[in-house]
Amino acid sequence: MASGHVLEARIGVSEFPVFIGPGLIGRMGELWTPRADGGAALVVHDEAVGGIADRVAEGLREAGQRVETVPVASGESSKSLSEVERLTRVAARARIRRRDAVVAVGGGVLGDLAGFLAASYQRGIGLVHVPTTLLAMVDSAIGGKTGVDLPEGKNYVGAIWQPRLVVMDTETLESLPQRQLSCGFAEVVKYGLLESPELFERIDAWPDPLPGPREELIDLIRDCVLHKLRVVSEDEFETGLRASLNLGHTVGHGIEAAGGYDRYQHGEAISLGLLAALRIAERMTGLDPVWRARTRAVLARHRLPVTLDPTLSTEAILDAMGRDKKADAGALNMVLIGAPGDIRLRQNPPMEMVVQAIEELHP
Amino acid sequence: MASGHVLEARIGVSEFPVFIGPGLIGRMGELWTPRADGGAALVVHDEAVGGIADRVAEGLREAGQRVETVPVASGESSKSLSEVERLTRVAARARIRRRDAVVAVGGGVLGDLAGFLAASYQRGIGLVHVPTTLLAMVDSAIGGKTGVDLPEGKNYVGAIWQPRLVVMDTETLESLPQRQLSCGFAEVVKYGLLESPELFERIDAWPDPLPGPREELIDLIRDCVLHKLRVVSEDEFETGLRASLNLGHTVGHGIEAAGGYDRYQHGEAISLGLLAALRIAERMTGLDPVWRARTRAVLARHRLPVTLDPTLSTEAILDAMGRDKKADAGALNMVLIGAPGDIRLRQNPPMEMVVQAIEELHP
Repeated sequence: MASGHVLEARIGVSEFPVFIGPGLIGRMGELWTPRADGGAALVVHDEAVGGIADRVAEGLREAGQRVETVPVASGESSKSLSEVERLTRVAARARIRRRDAVVAVGGGVLGDLAGFLAASYQRGIGLVHVPTTLLAMVDSAIGGKTGVDLPEGKNYVGAIWQPRLVVMDTETLESLPQRQLSCGFAEVVKYGLLESPELFERIDAWPDPLPGPREELIDLIRDCVLHKLRVVSEDEFETGLRASLNLGHTVGHGIEAAGGYDRYQHGEAISLGLLAALRIAERMTGLDPVWRARTRAVLARHRLPVTLDPTLSTEAILDAMGRDKKADAGALNMVLIGAPGDIRLRQNPPMEMVVQAIEELHP
Repeated sequence: MASGHVLEARIGVSEFPVFIGPGLIGRMGELWTPRADGGAALVVHDEAVGGIADRVAEGLREAGQRVETVPVASGESSKSLSEVERLTRVAARARIRRRDAVVAVGGGVLGDLAGFLAASYQRGIGLVHVPTTLLAMVDSAIGGKTGVDLPEGKNYVGAIWQPRLVVMDTETLESLPQRQLSCGFAEVVKYGLLESPELFERIDAWPDPLPGPREELIDLIRDCVLHKLRVVSEDEFETGLRASLNLGHTVGHGIEAAGGYDRYQHGEAISLGLLAALRIAERMTGLDPVWRARTRAVLARHRLPVTLDPTLSTEAILDAMGRDKKADAGALNMVLIGAPGDIRLRQNPPMEMVVQAIEELHP
C-alpha cells in the first residue's frame, strides 16, 4: 500500500508540489505529465544512479514525453562551468526548448549542476528534482539554490531557480551507502536544532542503522522539508532568515575547505561545524550545554565525526572561513541558537570564541 | 546646461531608474552611490571603449567605491561560457561579493555577457548598464535579457536579470562608427512600426547622418525605451506580448545566421527582416504597402541594406530559421502589424508567403 505526503510549496512566484514516499519513481509519468508545458525532457543523472534514471525516463516516455538521458560523473568536480557547457550543448542537440524540462536525478552535486543547467539554458526552462540521497531530500533539492564551483570557491556561479516538481522516492535511500546516509543525517540534526525540542527529541531517538524505519523516515523527511520550505518562502534570496539554514556551516565550510573537499564530505564537516556553533552559542547565548552533549552523541551514533582530524590546523580553517563567500565583506556571520527552535543570527562573534570552539574539536 | 530624462522602470519585483542624456558618464558616482548596497564594483567593458570605462571607474572611485576594471574583446565571439568563466574568476579574485555590482560598459554583446556575469556570479549580484551604442540604448540594455552563445545557437545560455541602474550618456554616440549607428537605427525603425504612426513619422523624417540632432535624439531614445519598458513590464518572461519586440527578427535571425554572423551585423539583418515581415503582413493583415515603401526608404537612407546578398540562398535562411530557438517546437512565430501600432502575433504563416517575402528581398 502506498504511503507518503504531498506538500504544496509556494516560493516567490513559484508553486510546486513535493511528493515524499516509497515507489514514486514508478509514477513519474503520472506526476509530471499534468505539469509539463512541453513535450520533451532531458534526464540528467549521476552515473551512480543510472538504473533509477532509466526508470524515470521510461515512465516519462510511457506518458508520451520525448526523453533523452545524459549521465554525469559522480563527485564535486562535476560542478564546473565546462560541465555546464557540455550539458547545454547536449540539450541543444537534443532539441530541448523553452517549454521543455530538465529532470535532475541524483544527490546534491547533481541537483546543483542540473538545476543551474535548467536555470540558464535558453534563459531558463522547467526543472524537476528527483533527489536520490537523504542530503538532497532534506536540503539541496528544496529552496532553489543551484550552481557550480570555481577554483576560487564553491558555488561561485549559479542561480536561484525553483523546480516545478520535486519527487522524493524514499526507496532510493535503501541502497544508499551508509556514509552518504550519515552525511544527510547531519543536516537532519541541524533541522532538529533549528525547529524545536520536539523534532530534536525524535532525531535524538533515531535508531541505528540509517535510514531507519520506513514510515517514520517519511515523516522525518517531511518535517525537515516543511521547515526549509517555511524559511525559504519567507526569504527566497537570503536577505535574512534564510541564513539561519547555515547553522553549522560557517565553521563547517572552513573545515571542508581546509580539508581540500576531500578529507571530509560536506555532511561530515557540518557535523563538526554544528558542534562548534553550539559551543559558541553556549558562550554567547547561554545555550544549555546539554544540547551540545546530546547533539554530539547522536552525531557519533550515526558515524559522523565529532572530533577534528589533528592534521587540520585551526589557522587553515580560519583562513578558509575568510574566503567563504557567506562571510560578508569583512564580517563573519554566525548562526547560533539559544535552545532548539530559538534562532539567533550574530555578526562577528569574538574571534577568540571561534578559535576556542575549533580548538575544542580536537580530541 | 544639462538636458535629459529619468524614467522609473518597474519590471516584476525590480525598480530602477533609466537616465538618458548628455554628460552622464561624468556623474556616475553621484548616480550609483545612493543605489549601491556594497562597496565594490567590477567595471566590465568592451576594449573599444576603454576611455569611457576609465571615466566610469574614476567617478565610482571618487564616490568611495573600490573599483576593478576588466576589458573584453569586441565582437560576438566574446559571448561564450569560457569568457563567463574567465570573468567570474576575475570577480572572485577581486573579492567582489554578493552586495557588490557589475558595471557593464559597451554595446549589446558586452551588456549580454556582463549581464549574465552579474546574474550568475554568487547566484546574482547588482548590475549597472552603461550602454555606449544606439542599439544597446534602445534595445539590449532594457528588458533584462542576458546571455552567451553556444556553437548550437545564439543566446542559448543566459538569464533574465534586471539592472539596478541604467545610464545612457548620449555623448558616447557621437564617436560611434556610422555602421554601428545604422544598426541601432534599424531597431529604432522597428519601434516606430510597433508604437504608432506618429513615432514612425518622426523616425521617417530623421535627418542624415546619424545620430542626428542632440535634443531630438534624447527624446527619440526615451520613446523607444518607454515602448520597450511598457512591453517588458507586462510580460517579463516573454509568454506573450514581449514576443512583439521580435518584429523583423524571425527572418532577420535567419539571414544573420545564414550569413555566418559575419556577412550582416545584427541590425543589418533586422533591416532586411523588417521588410520581409512587412511583406508578409501585406498579404496576411492587409497592411497598406505604403508602410513598407516608407520603411525601405528610411532604412536605405541610413545605409541599412534593403536588398539581400544574392549569395545567401533562401534555403539557407529557412534552414537557419528552423534552428531559431524562438521557433516553438515545429511552429514558426511571426510578428506582423496591420498598421504602425497595430500588432498581430501569428503562428505558422503559410510557408510560401515566407519564401516569397525572402525571394523579394533579392534585387
